[in-house]
Amino acid sequence: MQDSLVIAGKELNSRLFVGTGKFADHNKMKEALEESQSEVVTVAVRRVDLGGDDQYILNDIPDYMTLMPNTSGARTAEEAIRIARLSKAAGMGNWIKIEVISDSKYLLPDNEETIKATEALVEEGFVVLPYMSPDLMAGKRLEEAGAATVMPLGSPIGSNRGIQMKEIIQIMIDEINVPIVVDAGIGRPSEAAEAMEMGADAVLVNTAIATAKDPVAMAQAFDLAVKAGRSGFLAGLGATKAKASASSPLTGFLHS
Amino acid sequence: MQDSLVIAGKELNSRLFVGTGKFADHNKMKEALEESQSEVVTVAVRRVDLGGDDQYILNDIPDYMTLMPNTSGARTAEEAIRIARLSKAAGMGNWIKIEVISDSKYLLPDNEETIKATEALVEEGFVVLPYMSPDLMAGKRLEEAGAATVMPLGSPIGSNRGIQMKEIIQIMIDEINVPIVVDAGIGRPSEAAEAMEMGADAVLVNTAIATAKDPVAMAQAFDLAVKAGRSGFLAGLGATKAKASASSPLTGFLHS
Amino acid sequence: MQDSLVIAGKELNSRLFVGTGKFADHNKMKEALEESQSEVVTVAVRRVDLGGDDQYILNDIPDYMTLMPNTSGARTAEEAIRIARLSKAAGMGNWIKIEVISDSKYLLPDNEETIKATEALVEEGFVVLPYMSPDLMAGKRLEEAGAATVMPLGSPIGSNRGIQMKEIIQIMIDEINVPIVVDAGIGRPSEAAEAMEMGADAVLVNTAIATAKDPVAMAQAFDLAVKAGRSGFLAGLGATKAKASASSPLTGFLHS
Amino acid sequence: MQDSLVIAGKELNSRLFVGTGKFADHNKMKEALEESQSEVVTVAVRRVDLGGDDQYILNDIPDYMTLMPNTSGARTAEEAIRIARLSKAAGMGNWIKIEVISDSKYLLPDNEETIKATEALVEEGFVVLPYMSPDLMAGKRLEEAGAATVMPLGSPIGSNRGIQMKEIIQIMIDEINVPIVVDAGIGRPSEAAEAMEMGADAVLVNTAIATAKDPVAMAQAFDLAVKAGRSGFLAGLGATKAKASASSPLTGFLHS
Repeated sequence: MQDSLVIAGKELNSRLFVGTGKFADHNKMKEALEESQSEVVTVAVRRVDLGGDDQYILNDIPDYMTLMPNTSGARTAEEAIRIARLSKAAGMGNWIKIEVISDSKYLLPDNEETIKATEALVEEGFVVLPYMSPDLMAGKRLEEAGAATVMPLGSPIGSNRGIQMKEIIQIMIDEINVPIVVDAGIGRPSEAAEAMEMGADAVLVNTAIATAKDPVAMAQAFDLAVKAGRSGFLAGLGATKAKASASSPLTGFLHS
Repeated sequence: MQDSLVIAGKELNSRLFVGTGKFADHNKMKEALEESQSEVVTVAVRRVDLGGDDQYILNDIPDYMTLMPNTSGARTAEEAIRIARLSKAAGMGNWIKIEVISDSKYLLPDNEETIKATEALVEEGFVVLPYMSPDLMAGKRLEEAGAATVMPLGSPIGSNRGIQMKEIIQIMIDEINVPIVVDAGIGRPSEAAEAMEMGADAVLVNTAIATAKDPVAMAQAFDLAVKAGRSGFLAGLGATKAKASASSPLTGFLHS
Repeated sequence: MQDSLVIAGKELNSRLFVGTGKFADHNKMKEALEESQSEVVTVAVRRVDLGGDDQYILNDIPDYMTLMPNTSGARTAEEAIRIARLSKAAGMGNWIKIEVISDSKYLLPDNEETIKATEALVEEGFVVLPYMSPDLMAGKRLEEAGAATVMPLGSPIGSNRGIQMKEIIQIMIDEINVPIVVDAGIGRPSEAAEAMEMGADAVLVNTAIATAKDPVAMAQAFDLAVKAGRSGFLAGLGATKAKASASSPLTGFLHS
Repeated sequence: MQDSLVIAGKELNSRLFVGTGKFADHNKMKEALEESQSEVVTVAVRRVDLGGDDQYILNDIPDYMTLMPNTSGARTAEEAIRIARLSKAAGMGNWIKIEVISDSKYLLPDNEETIKATEALVEEGFVVLPYMSPDLMAGKRLEEAGAATVMPLGSPIGSNRGIQMKEIIQIMIDEINVPIVVDAGIGRPSEAAEAMEMGADAVLVNTAIATAKDPVAMAQAFDLAVKAGRSGFLAGLGATKAKASASSPLTGFLHS
């Protein structure tokens, strides 16, 4: 179809981005990634770098997927920049999802440090996709800094609470010109569909797929939901009404 | 797949029921019905009976669909019973969706009259699918009366307000043994997905498809959404959490 | 003030109704009832009738309060009618709150049986205040049967979930002519205020006060909240807007 | 009572802060300010400075209130700093509410510039009360910079949409040590009560009072609501439950 999403010149047919964390095993992960139809997958640079079992995680990511390494573990812009460089040096490509988090309880990203890291890494030629706390002005700064997308969280990561920050995310979708990817908090297919109906360009889902009883079936559910929400958005959603309006004619019949 | 829904011995592969009201023209309607993959369609007996253009509406309903004529226009049990008999006499089969509505502003169904009509028509051999205001005890009475499904409204018909009555509909899903079909109020694909994630057996969508800018694309969107929600339900949705929980490892890396 | 609520000729200055269940002890209860400023209190006829400690509960209810005995424990109209007669015979007055509940899990009232009991007891001269599952047509039947008020639940009793049934309760407030009292589910002062802002005539609160760490302070909080919500309703609430609108002038100053 | 709020050594008995914008006339404003029982009032420095009618606005503010001049109209930290100095020079005291807004559509504050202005003005000896877009890390920086309170918006100013940003504001209340004042968006008394129940230290309300049909009655309604919500918070709110829990005993009676 011609409704593709283009990020840094890459044409994507799926608007579902996925992650590699929390899967029970690599086989299930691989199968779920494939079933999701997703073309973009995020992986923590730290896991690849660690050695041990996890270093082979890249082997279980389908070849056709674009790798979006993330700077998980970074607490400052400087640390995020260092991780991004390690990632490129390790052959993981030039896409980088910036995560700068110093709050260890709610894991909320630090927008100010995220903006700094974005500015520096765009300068170095990275395709930068920053994860952020929803905020219009910070989003505009990320856009100005050259971010390829802006990725606000829907609710705290791993909380499965859906798009709690709807109000501000809707404003960001309306006012920011680079693609908006709703990242974190989406726990159910219906919530992914809702993000797409709001006009988001894509969603990133990890926990909800990885920790489902059946991750492969859940990956498929999210694939369908994202397509459903996007189709609904394009088909022109109706306005809500305060009163009822009959689908079938109500008068006349037996009473006429 | 083996996750079919069986109503009165009929095996259905799609859990999306659709309607025929409010379409701009019959061609668009036919195309949308087909694209929806739905196998059950409701049509007001009154429209068929009217003569004029509308009487040919049946010609534009795909052959493979099960007809669920409705008693739209009935204000009492007695009127609904009369319409049901007309429907059968006119060769529209023995399924009947009961709608008894005397409230002309919000078009909210009358549960007491609906129960009476259900009792009488089950007695006469109809497959009765009553539309109702969400209420646990009324739902149980409909079940006892022999209803094939119970169809509570999500919000007032045509309002596109989604599942406002979530609290009570969830209880009905948990406590009533015949299939629950959420009918009326669903305005967006995400809301149809949500109903399925709650464990509803099916949804009925009419206004949202018929009045979309592109009804055919919207029909497809709802088809995907219902499948997404159902798959998510079967795959085992995760619980929501008050706090965040990282998808990627957060500690150790640069700090170790 | 002249904004009093009149029920069966009785003029009430407080729109907060309270209950006597779940208090840790009678002294705390008495103090909370007084602090609530409430003038109407419900008590289960069954408790009075039981003998033992509970039979003296009436001694701890302030004299100025109107007693609204309830038929808690009734599972049918017939049982409710029997309890109402016992109540009157025991000198508890001619007000009766009808509760007919056969669902032991969610404790949702049975509207059909409630309507029957209301019809019978109005006939016998009772002032009937029926507790019910929110439903427009059932509410209209209760009004026609002569109910002094209609008391829909906000959410299942004791759940502290607030006004989950907002959609239908708003419609009942708009369409039914006797006073609407939101009963059950209200867990926080803000939710009582919200009911009043919607135009409800009164609220009944029991669990939220009785089980608070400090029931007396909580009683006072609900008193204030009900007054706040009612004042807000009368003062003319503003409409919500999709966009911002500055309170202070934004242009000109430094830029002019 | 001893539940006072202390800001910069000033003890406040009311947790309702009010504004002076949008009132139809100065007399109504004065009466509403008095009736609100509020002890803190914000006024745009720009209005005082303008000359013309508005310059006399200070005359209509009750003497006992603490003036919290605001930098409305500032689009950068630098402009906000300039306005703050003008305010002090004009004898309006050393409290300053920082508002830095360059987004003219949703009027969302610029956290980065707000932090800069806060740092500079704390340095100059001001009591700084910054208005901000809800964000945990920006809130922490404001605290570190020496802000006397942190004032996140509930929803876009003047929108009357309530606390749309509940999720993040709750986290800010839990994690930030200076008082949190929910500012902007609160349109109904129940929403003010809700903010207090969440544990907010105060709320600022302007539009909802000033534009009510009866601003004086609405001021009183908000006063009561804030007290109700605060009392409820202190009295220990109960947890919500998934199932019902009877207030009155349900078994035994007629069935025993």
